[in-house]
Amino acid sequence: MKPPDSGANAAIRRAVEAGFEAQTRFLAELVAIPSVRGQEAPAQDMMEAALRERGYAVDAWTIDPAALAPLPGFGPVTHDFSRARTVVGSWRPETATGRSLILQGHVDVVPPGPLEMWTTPPFEPAIRNGWMHGRGAGDMKSGLVGALFALDAIRAAGYAPAAPVHLQSVIEEESTGLGALSACQRGYRADCVLIPEPGDHCLTRAQVGVLWFRLRVRGRPTHVAVAGTGSNAITAAMRMVEALQGLEAEWNERAKAHPIYAHVDHPLNFNPGVISGGDWPSSVPAWCDVDCRIGILPGARIEDAQAEIQGCVAQAASGDPFLRENPPEVVWNGFLAEGWVLENAEEPESVFADAFSTVFGAPAPEERLMTALTDTRFYGLYHGMPALCWGPIAENIHGFDERVDLDSVKRSTEVMALFIASWCGLVKA
Amino acid sequence: MKPPDSGANAAIRRAVEAGFEAQTRFLAELVAIPSVRGQEAPAQDMMEAALRERGYAVDAWTIDPAALAPLPGFGPVTHDFSRARTVVGSWRPETATGRSLILQGHVDVVPPGPLEMWTTPPFEPAIRNGWMHGRGAGDMKSGLVGALFALDAIRAAGYAPAAPVHLQSVIEEESTGLGALSACQRGYRADCVLIPEPGDHCLTRAQVGVLWFRLRVRGRPTHVAVAGTGSNAITAAMRMVEALQGLEAEWNERAKAHPIYAHVDHPLNFNPGVISGGDWPSSVPAWCDVDCRIGILPGARIEDAQAEIQGCVAQAASGDPFLRENPPEVVWNGFLAEGWVLENAEEPESVFADAFSTVFGAPAPEERLMTALTDTRFYGLYHGMPALCWGPIAENIHGFDERVDLDSVKRSTEVMALFIASWCGLVKA
Repeated sequence: MKPPDSGANAAIRRAVEAGFEAQTRFLAELVAIPSVRGQEAPAQDMMEAALRERGYAVDAWTIDPAALAPLPGFGPVTHDFSRARTVVGSWRPETATGRSLILQGHVDVVPPGPLEMWTTPPFEPAIRNGWMHGRGAGDMKSGLVGALFALDAIRAAGYAPAAPVHLQSVIEEESTGLGALSACQRGYRADCVLIPEPGDHCLTRAQVGVLWFRLRVRGRPTHVAVAGTGSNAITAAMRMVEALQGLEAEWNERAKAHPIYAHVDHPLNFNPGVISGGDWPSSVPAWCDVDCRIGILPGARIEDAQAEIQGCVAQAASGDPFLRENPPEVVWNGFLAEGWVLENAEEPESVFADAFSTVFGAPAPEERLMTALTDTRFYGLYHGMPALCWGPIAENIHGFDERVDLDSVKRSTEVMALFIASWCGLVKA
Repeated sequence: MKPPDSGANAAIRRAVEAGFEAQTRFLAELVAIPSVRGQEAPAQDMMEAALRERGYAVDAWTIDPAALAPLPGFGPVTHDFSRARTVVGSWRPETATGRSLILQGHVDVVPPGPLEMWTTPPFEPAIRNGWMHGRGAGDMKSGLVGALFALDAIRAAGYAPAAPVHLQSVIEEESTGLGALSACQRGYRADCVLIPEPGDHCLTRAQVGVLWFRLRVRGRPTHVAVAGTGSNAITAAMRMVEALQGLEAEWNERAKAHPIYAHVDHPLNFNPGVISGGDWPSSVPAWCDVDCRIGILPGARIEDAQAEIQGCVAQAASGDPFLRENPPEVVWNGFLAEGWVLENAEEPESVFADAFSTVFGAPAPEERLMTALTDTRFYGLYHGMPALCWGPIAENIHGFDERVDLDSVKRSTEVMALFIASWCGLVKA
């Protein structure tokens, strides 16, 4: 093992620069694959091929939700999961002397929404003014590809990590986290985890937990001529949503006493994100489904949050004669994720700060308290692994014209490469 | 021409009784055809074949919306209309001596909703305790088939109407009325119109008008982590619906001064009937569409109602910074129908009351003020034809387990046959 000296660091940074055109091309190819939920397979194929081509030992497997269901952090899936795969490429030196590392990114992206709202099509990546536009360009194909090319740069500079490195390409980050959970269940462990989610170069100090649920509201259909005798599931769903907005306000009020989130404005967001109900304008609708997301604080128990949500909906329904007899259902259909705080990670944080400082000058990255989540929680909460989340500058993630700053991607790749070199140590290749 | 005597009446009623098993079978076959909007063709094929088989002169044509668009009462269609047909079977005596008649019914039915809510499948008609269950059994295949078999009974009794009779099988009654409008445009006229919609044996004295519209609400999508910076189209749509509920209340308040509807409780119903929005629980939704229906009073002008609806939505949007810049759209996508009152119809009403009295004993049918509409309006409003709407007892129309009372269907068929005989007069066949 050879600790990186300034000469090695400089060579690695030059290699990132030299490889950046190929990296940008690779990123564009990956962004062009519409890897929305259930359709991640071709993106995983591309990552697997890239890992094999580079000589990594590749472990790729179909995820079996039944094997994961008993594990903490599991969130239920209801769609066809037969193509759901995790891909891990591993570098294992002949004699490991340094500290091992997991680099992880997700290929799943959220749906693009109406295409006419995009300046250029979401899956035809376009570079304008130094930004690559496209769904997933920011969240988080640029980080995943950055990790791959950071390792390439170390190799191109004539080195190899002196400890095992696992590059994990996962899915389901946006909905359950089952990709990351499957890697944990498969047994992948390391002395540190780095997940390069887009984060404006800020280190994630804490993240909220998230619950997904479907609110299923029934109605009593009638001809609208006698609408008063029916029960409109759409307007009933609206009353349930209002009640949940009340719960959201209450939770944010309580958050003002939280040791970490006390000073974050409105950390817990409730979002009715998808709605569907009824089938005829002149019939009182018999059903309305609302897919919802709500945040919970680190330290909050999933079961308690679930009970409060159930109670809120039951309470709101109790005032209505029809809903009292036909109570809305709350179906847990995705994330059941706890919040998490990065603690006891002084060693990797310090090594990371050095790498950051080399590239950006400032002594250490700023920190952020996220009002969303990342896959880091699985490693931190359930396996005691320090898990850093840090990545490039992106805008409009989950919105239209999502984009990532390519200069930031390059510098982030440098930071990652220097961190790998320093954390794992280097051997001459 | 021979006015029907009690002997002819008795023979006709016996013929209805004798034919009722075949009538019930025919009705079940027609109910088994899922003639929801856009899929009415096989039901129209069945009606056309039945009319041809009986020797009527059949006129069946594809409806051209462009030819109807300039006509009063037109409502826009946005779906594939290439299979939309009207079928008319006409009886024309060699020498017409009596009063001519249009008998009209619609084969289109509203969607059945979730199948699991039905005791027996909506398009597998089942008879239980004297009721035929099935979507459209009540609204209004039983009435349409009743008209066909009423004519059959007259023939079976050895007679024929002494004046032209047009049996019109139409579509789009539930959405625009374009089937009826196309028959008007084609030139069909008569001294009276009878539409046997289900109505618990009540004669329709008045009906409201109806407007359909799609409320298209935009949002500003963001990651839900920063939901406060976005604009949720679903919750925005809820605010628009609330505003329209306010308009509904105001209109019903005004209705208390209406010469006819003053004492009808809540005659004008607003119904958000279909909703659809967003595509991801953890993204702030960028759009939400709500398909709505609202009633207007007889005498109210369509343009005035449209302007009030537009103004209500604009006003509700004006308080929101995002919606002010991205105002919700109101798209007129179906009924633009005026209300209507049956007036100046003493002659057909009197003849109808006699037929009713012969079957039910009571001197005349009770009257109803409908809070929905029927196709009668086209004849009454735009062509000065008296148009009676009267039909059998049905339950749960537009709901689950729609059903029609078969004894009521039989007696209604008798009433129709006697009315035809008396209105048109009879000749020996």
